[in-house]
Amino acid sequence: MMWQLDFILTWHSDYFFINYTMFGEIITIGNELLSGRTPDINGWYAAGRLTASGLRVQRITTVGDDIEKAKNALKEAIKRSEFVIITGGLGSTEDDITNEIVAEVLNRPLRLNKEMFSRIKRFVNRRGIKMSPSMEKMAWMPEGSKLLNPKGIVCGFSIEIDHTILFFLPGVPDQMKHLMDKVVIPMLIERYQTLPVVRQRIIKVFGISEPQIAEKFKGLTKSKSNISFGFYPQFPENHITITIRGKDEAEILMQMDEVEQEIRKILGYYVFAVGNDSMEAIVGRLLKEKGLSLSTAESCTGGLLGNMITDVPGSSRYFKGGIVAYSNEAKHGLLDVSTRTLREHGAVSEQTVKEMARGVKELFRSDIAVAISGIAGPEGGSSEKPVGTVFICLASDKLIDARRFYFMGTREQIKRQSAMMALDFIRRYINGYPILPGI
Amino acid sequence: MMWQLDFILTWHSDYFFINYTMFGEIITIGNELLSGRTPDINGWYAAGRLTASGLRVQRITTVGDDIEKAKNALKEAIKRSEFVIITGGLGSTEDDITNEIVAEVLNRPLRLNKEMFSRIKRFVNRRGIKMSPSMEKMAWMPEGSKLLNPKGIVCGFSIEIDHTILFFLPGVPDQMKHLMDKVVIPMLIERYQTLPVVRQRIIKVFGISEPQIAEKFKGLTKSKSNISFGFYPQFPENHITITIRGKDEAEILMQMDEVEQEIRKILGYYVFAVGNDSMEAIVGRLLKEKGLSLSTAESCTGGLLGNMITDVPGSSRYFKGGIVAYSNEAKHGLLDVSTRTLREHGAVSEQTVKEMARGVKELFRSDIAVAISGIAGPEGGSSEKPVGTVFICLASDKLIDARRFYFMGTREQIKRQSAMMALDFIRRYINGYPILPGI
Repeated sequence: MMWQLDFILTWHSDYFFINYTMFGEIITIGNELLSGRTPDINGWYAAGRLTASGLRVQRITTVGDDIEKAKNALKEAIKRSEFVIITGGLGSTEDDITNEIVAEVLNRPLRLNKEMFSRIKRFVNRRGIKMSPSMEKMAWMPEGSKLLNPKGIVCGFSIEIDHTILFFLPGVPDQMKHLMDKVVIPMLIERYQTLPVVRQRIIKVFGISEPQIAEKFKGLTKSKSNISFGFYPQFPENHITITIRGKDEAEILMQMDEVEQEIRKILGYYVFAVGNDSMEAIVGRLLKEKGLSLSTAESCTGGLLGNMITDVPGSSRYFKGGIVAYSNEAKHGLLDVSTRTLREHGAVSEQTVKEMARGVKELFRSDIAVAISGIAGPEGGSSEKPVGTVFICLASDKLIDARRFYFMGTREQIKRQSAMMALDFIRRYINGYPILPGI
Repeated sequence: MMWQLDFILTWHSDYFFINYTMFGEIITIGNELLSGRTPDINGWYAAGRLTASGLRVQRITTVGDDIEKAKNALKEAIKRSEFVIITGGLGSTEDDITNEIVAEVLNRPLRLNKEMFSRIKRFVNRRGIKMSPSMEKMAWMPEGSKLLNPKGIVCGFSIEIDHTILFFLPGVPDQMKHLMDKVVIPMLIERYQTLPVVRQRIIKVFGISEPQIAEKFKGLTKSKSNISFGFYPQFPENHITITIRGKDEAEILMQMDEVEQEIRKILGYYVFAVGNDSMEAIVGRLLKEKGLSLSTAESCTGGLLGNMITDVPGSSRYFKGGIVAYSNEAKHGLLDVSTRTLREHGAVSEQTVKEMARGVKELFRSDIAVAISGIAGPEGGSSEKPVGTVFICLASDKLIDARRFYFMGTREQIKRQSAMMALDFIRRYINGYPILPGI
């Protein structure tokens, strides 16, 4: 694995970010984050949104539901940063304690926020419940704080101190994300509009390994100082980010298109998406465009392929269904794989997977069918067909084509790579690209 | 959602941890963590392992691949904590810079570690590659540092300074996890063996909402001061942790069993697992024990149920396979759902799901069959059958039983709840528990 490590370390960099001047940071508060119960999704989300907006996060600090520790983290952050995003709960009387900490650290007394108080009143009235002291306390906020949300009673406010702006957001991820996207990011962009414009684009590739990508990328990296590349393995895909910094958005986007074209040229058909599209969404779009229907025959993936295909809204327009033929009986009885094929070549073989594809295509009367049969492990391997051996076949009216692959990893990883490869098979077939050769 | 929030805040607490004396912290280093490309999985993992071992994490700090910022974070942590775990990369010459930072912060010169140097030599010789300067640099370590791994060249070392012990681990998650589990945790437990013993147990429940659990838990919470409960929604499950602290392991485990029994008494059949077992593993074990085979007919879940079932190694012993009947044609043609049923009741109906279950049971000649048909959205809902309406049916030789459910959430969440409910249906059926009534 050394080469992989070296490679990641070399490529995995956002070098030029060191030129930023607007440093911010994130504080996430919650015992569940320190006890390892929950990963810090809020910190991750906020960091991603800030970076994508051209702002620089210099630190993420996580502390527990502890007034003193939260106060210290806040004090330190104010000294270091131009903006601070604080998310999260401080125990059962969250609003109360957050406000108290802020009031103490910033030396600002609590005042009743009339707007918030009337929102809370409306909220309890509409529900016919009684105003509780803890509800009322939500309306007591540090002097000078501004409500973030234009309506509703989700708590969140900003306050400014010594040229640092602080944003206090709830710890509930949906509420936090909403305020982050709709209020905090626009406020920060407005505030720092003299900042350079930064745009990022993600290129998703599949079927090519990291060192192969590295090899192809040689020469491209030292192009221009305002362009940086990031390299991120997202199993079983690889993502490449292009980040471009400049003064003018239109100019950046033109440059971005050029760089994308360059990358597409060197990575060719391995590029399956630009932006946030998943492989299954790309394949779905292709099937819809061509008016083709699809069916699947799965053995070792056990339904994963169908599950991925149907994660795409509207997939019922092209996906007719599938057979999970986990037993030889099912392969024979339902998909009409001949007993002779099963006996002579085994359930994991080119012959079987071809008959599976043909069988399911006929059963569902689909234009395209894909079939997968392999050994996901941890048991069932042999020296001839070790764990990870997977056959994938695509059948259409015009052809039937099967390939043998050898995937590494856990049971789940082998399943995942198999399903992705089957989707990629469809993508390449419809686009007229060469199919990956397998082994 | 207010009640839910309140509830989580009340229950979601590791109160008694404040009694700990051994404070530690975690520093994770990497630009990808600050740019939001990658969530901080290493910090999360380390926090969980430390907490589960009875140690207390007081802060997690994330900084970028920046020497000055990493140095500052390290200096602050040493002042605050008894132990510090540092993970992660510092750019292309990671080992070099990590070592340099440590040497500077701790004021210790770099020395050639002979053991590491000979490991690296063996490594390059075996591979027939040349010793590079960056490879050699891995063997230069701060004076007084100890290699963590007994063999191999994965870098990782510990060093002690002013009563604080520091652990430097690689940023590659697998390597980090390995060293954490095999070396760091045992070393810390050995070091702080006078600490109270802490044991945690997870109770997993499904099919009961948070406020219902809260209601049932009333009275149980104020039991004993050395016992604490944690409440963690893990969609679509709910997890309850029991944490007990004491002097004697045997005594704690006895108390743990008692508390578990108490919880099982109040939550009854909603408890589906204790510990790390998944619902699909539990169902698999039950099927194996009873010698029963299973088949599935899926519509809206699109293969997710089969995928979950086949994530369990050895599932081919009881899972015969399934039909993903995404179209009405497939429901009729393959599962023998009558056209009249489809016309009169629709694809999402009790009648259809019953015929699907019966049909798939016959096709696969399985002892048990489950069928799912519903509207996962975002489109396809009506006022009579809104998005989230799902019918689930179990058919055995003895009975055929269908229920209607109404699930909330995104397309993926509705699929997920449906598949879980179908598995829970099987669990309850085999155990002879009452089946959840649906709506």
